[in-house]
Amino acid sequence: MKIGVLGTGMVGQSLARKLADLGHEVTMGSRAARNLKAAEFVKETGPNARAGIFSEAAAFGDLIVLAVNGAVALEALAAAGEANLAGKVLIDITNPLDFSNGMPPSLIPELSNTNSLGETIQKTYPNSRVVKALNTMNSALMVDPSRLSEPGDVFLCGNSSDAKAQVSKILKEFGWTQPIDLGDITAARALEQSLPLWLRLWGVFGTTDFNFKIVRG
Amino acid sequence: MKIGVLGTGMVGQSLARKLADLGHEVTMGSRAARNLKAAEFVKETGPNARAGIFSEAAAFGDLIVLAVNGAVALEALAAAGEANLAGKVLIDITNPLDFSNGMPPSLIPELSNTNSLGETIQKTYPNSRVVKALNTMNSALMVDPSRLSEPGDVFLCGNSSDAKAQVSKILKEFGWTQPIDLGDITAARALEQSLPLWLRLWGVFGTTDFNFKIVRG
Repeated sequence: MKIGVLGTGMVGQSLARKLADLGHEVTMGSRAARNLKAAEFVKETGPNARAGIFSEAAAFGDLIVLAVNGAVALEALAAAGEANLAGKVLIDITNPLDFSNGMPPSLIPELSNTNSLGETIQKTYPNSRVVKALNTMNSALMVDPSRLSEPGDVFLCGNSSDAKAQVSKILKEFGWTQPIDLGDITAARALEQSLPLWLRLWGVFGTTDFNFKIVRG
Repeated sequence: MKIGVLGTGMVGQSLARKLADLGHEVTMGSRAARNLKAAEFVKETGPNARAGIFSEAAAFGDLIVLAVNGAVALEALAAAGEANLAGKVLIDITNPLDFSNGMPPSLIPELSNTNSLGETIQKTYPNSRVVKALNTMNSALMVDPSRLSEPGDVFLCGNSSDAKAQVSKILKEFGWTQPIDLGDITAARALEQSLPLWLRLWGVFGTTDFNFKIVRG
């Protein structure tokens, strides 16, 4: 399908390349035209890859992946343009990290505990169907669960069952056999609040090559 | 060793019984004298079990387990008495859950994100050595990791390495072979903020018989 990936950082690169490799047509969106990383993506990925500014990537995609720094997520979506996002599934991979108190970061206060970035995006773009997913792991693992000794789990949440089914299908293309659906978009609070534990574990292990797995009875 | 368990709920019961079964001398502490659940614990557990008010349990223990509802944790410790807690290891199993916004609960705002109950307890009782542990799972699993298909992980954090070593020893007696040390007591933020995800998973699975496991490369 046609997918717009907003963001040219590690997460955007990782997802855009994998989606193009899987046969999707991908436009990587960046704030400014002639972004070097986006150009590199197009050059290295081949015919399925295009680049443009946020609004062009959003207009191109039938599905949008939001893969920017959480602190600028709403700004990037505003640049993408409400009309270009309307009626579409929007996969939100962002984390509202606040580095102003030093390391490890905390969460942006107004987006923590009783709120979240995921539900704020859904409220701001009521005509889009936001699905929070993949924010609980590093970018390499998102598209290659088999790089760990066992894959662990991926979570998703959102208000639209149809949108979650579409995202689950993509997650399965990435290799996630059983995504865990946590319910409506308010579960983004839980997913974003799991980042502090992820960040501490990174500090302990010295690598981001790990993942949460839920073991059952 | 002599252990004071503050709290007579499911967590307090589960831990007090297991600790007594392991050969420790346990006094279960409650707010008021002649607590029915504490009396039941003494009757069913045998010679290693005693009961008393919070201050008596704290005075008895060389190590203290705080196993009350998070919302009354500081109140219970005040009743236990600073002098009875001084110089001792204090295992904090509490979660600062706030039920005032409905279900699932959020965290008590002033104890979330850039603060935590664990570090607040450490600040309030600087002469005690607080170790946060076991707050990320149900009470049955805390003392019986083998009840799941695989145990998953238990985490701990605190400012005193010696205190963490003592707590790790107890965790190993429970069956946790490799507790993960997340660092100083500020990591309690991460452990407490993982509760929202745990609560959502409970909602999805319909059972509390699950645990977080960290899978590695």
